[in-house]
This record gives sequence, structure tokens and C-alpha cells, in this order.
Amino acid sequence: MNTTLATSITADPMVPAIRIIREFDAPPAAVYRAHVDPELVVRWLGPRRLTMTIQRWDAQTGGGYRYTHVGEDRTEHHFFGSFHELREGERIVQTFTYEGFPDAVAIETMTFVELPGGRTRLEAFSLGESFEVRDAMLESGMEEGVVQGYERLDEVLAGSTA
Amino acid sequence: MNTTLATSITADPMVPAIRIIREFDAPPAAVYRAHVDPELVVRWLGPRRLTMTIQRWDAQTGGGYRYTHVGEDRTEHHFFGSFHELREGERIVQTFTYEGFPDAVAIETMTFVELPGGRTRLEAFSLGESFEVRDAMLESGMEEGVVQGYERLDEVLAGSTA
Repeated sequence: MNTTLATSITADPMVPAIRIIREFDAPPAAVYRAHVDPELVVRWLGPRRLTMTIQRWDAQTGGGYRYTHVGEDRTEHHFFGSFHELREGERIVQTFTYEGFPDAVAIETMTFVELPGGRTRLEAFSLGESFEVRDAMLESGMEEGVVQGYERLDEVLAGSTA
Repeated sequence: MNTTLATSITADPMVPAIRIIREFDAPPAAVYRAHVDPELVVRWLGPRRLTMTIQRWDAQTGGGYRYTHVGEDRTEHHFFGSFHELREGERIVQTFTYEGFPDAVAIETMTFVELPGGRTRLEAFSLGESFEVRDAMLESGMEEGVVQGYERLDEVLAGSTA
């Protein structure tokens, strides 16, 4: 591919949520699998400058996860959450906490919408408990991780080893 | 006890959440345990007219649960969710879905605050994805279940077998 698909990241005006929309040149089953198979997740989740290691990944309704992102300076960032519901190829609802802010939790709903031509529109909705927490998350540099993560996911879906 | 403690249930004005505050004549460790031990939970959660059975109860950070409420007419109501985080005696964060509305999910944070005299103030914060869903939950008759459930919890904490 010579073109990179655009990632839309917007703050909801009514509720303390972030909405992310991104299209992928792969069918919903493949994009979904890249979100639940830990061997695929570890290859794309987060910005390029960080390396991901997974401590726990029990991708089923009522399961949980914990992973670490580490950069060149060896600083470790830990994340954990639970899988509220997984609907094969359609929808994932999960919780998310960054241990640097251990009292804050977001609930994320990802919907995989089939588009013509074997493509997918991923609609993600991440809800926090207050507008302050939501806005702090938007200003934390999450955009870098989301945009680069989805570019890396393009590469995983294309079968490259970038 | 001759007096019943009052349960405060309010709609948050800023975010699509319900706030519940209730005091108990028992210390935080006991009130917390009654929320995580399935043999205690089954004795109090929900209105008196319904009987609770638990299909799954893995009360740990990253675990999940599923239970059923059934009334005299044998109608079954199923609920499920995941335990995002359990902090012993202090805080529970969990998700919640009523399968009658399978696409709606709430994230519930319960904080157990120690009061003088070995008492506890339970502060519950239940966040939904929209004001419509939050208001529908408030109008669904949840008040009966919450108020009666906490009266039953009073009885469990007092050691009665009511």
C-alpha cells in the first residue's frame, strides 16, 4: 500500500468518551482476530517506539489481561483490564486501566463493521468516569499510540513482518 | 435493629451515571466480603421476590461472573460481567450487563469507606454509555432491587438467616 488510512479520534460532546474510527483493508474476521490473538496483538498495539510483552491474555467473555510496554530507556508502563464480552468477529467490550493512574478505568467497546470489498470499519468507543479523566487521556499522547498502532495493524493484516 | 438505614439513589447531572450511597452497621471488611463471597452474595443481591442462582463467580481482578434471578412465575433474568479490579476491603470495579438488553453495559465502582464505630459507607458509581441507557435503568424498577437487596444485606451482616 502506498496510502495510509486515516484514523479519526474525537471527543464526544455529551458523555466523557473518546470515539475512534478507522478502516482496514481486511475483513472483520481478520481485524477481530488481530485484537484477540496475543501473538498478533503484541505485534501492533501501541506506538512503534515501545515493545509490548503480555503477562496475561485470557481473551474470552469474563476473562482478563495484563501487559507491559517498555521503551528504549527501559521505563515500563503496565496496563490491565477484563474482557466483559467477546462476540466473534463482531464486537469486543473490555475494561482498561493504566497503572500510572490506578483509580481511573475506561470501558471500551469495539465494533467491527463489514464494508464492501472485504474491508472493515472499526468503531471504538472508550468511556471514562469524568470529562477530566477523558480529557487527560486525550492529552496524554494517546494519539501517537493509536495512529501508529493501527498503521502497524495494517502491516500485520497485510502479512508483512514490519 | 428496629431502624432501616436509608439508601440514596441519584442520577449524576454531568455524566450518564447512577450514584448510590448506603451505610451499614458492619466494618468494611465484612461488607466487602459479602460482595465477593458467592455464598453470601446469593443471600442478598436483588429484591426479595427473586431467587438468585450463580453459574460463574470468579471474584478476582480479571475474573468474571454470571448469575440468574428467577421469580415465582419461573421467568429467568440473566446477568453477566467481569471483575476489572478487586482491592481487598476497599474497592471493587466490575462490569454489568442484563441479557435482556445485551448491547448495554455499565461499569460499577464500589468504594467501602470506614466510618467510626465499626461502620461502613458504601459508595457505588454505575456508569453507562448514554443518558438514555442510564435513565432507562433508573426507570426499570432497579430501586426495588437495590433498596431490598441492601436490607437483606443488613440481615446477612447481622448474622440472621432471613
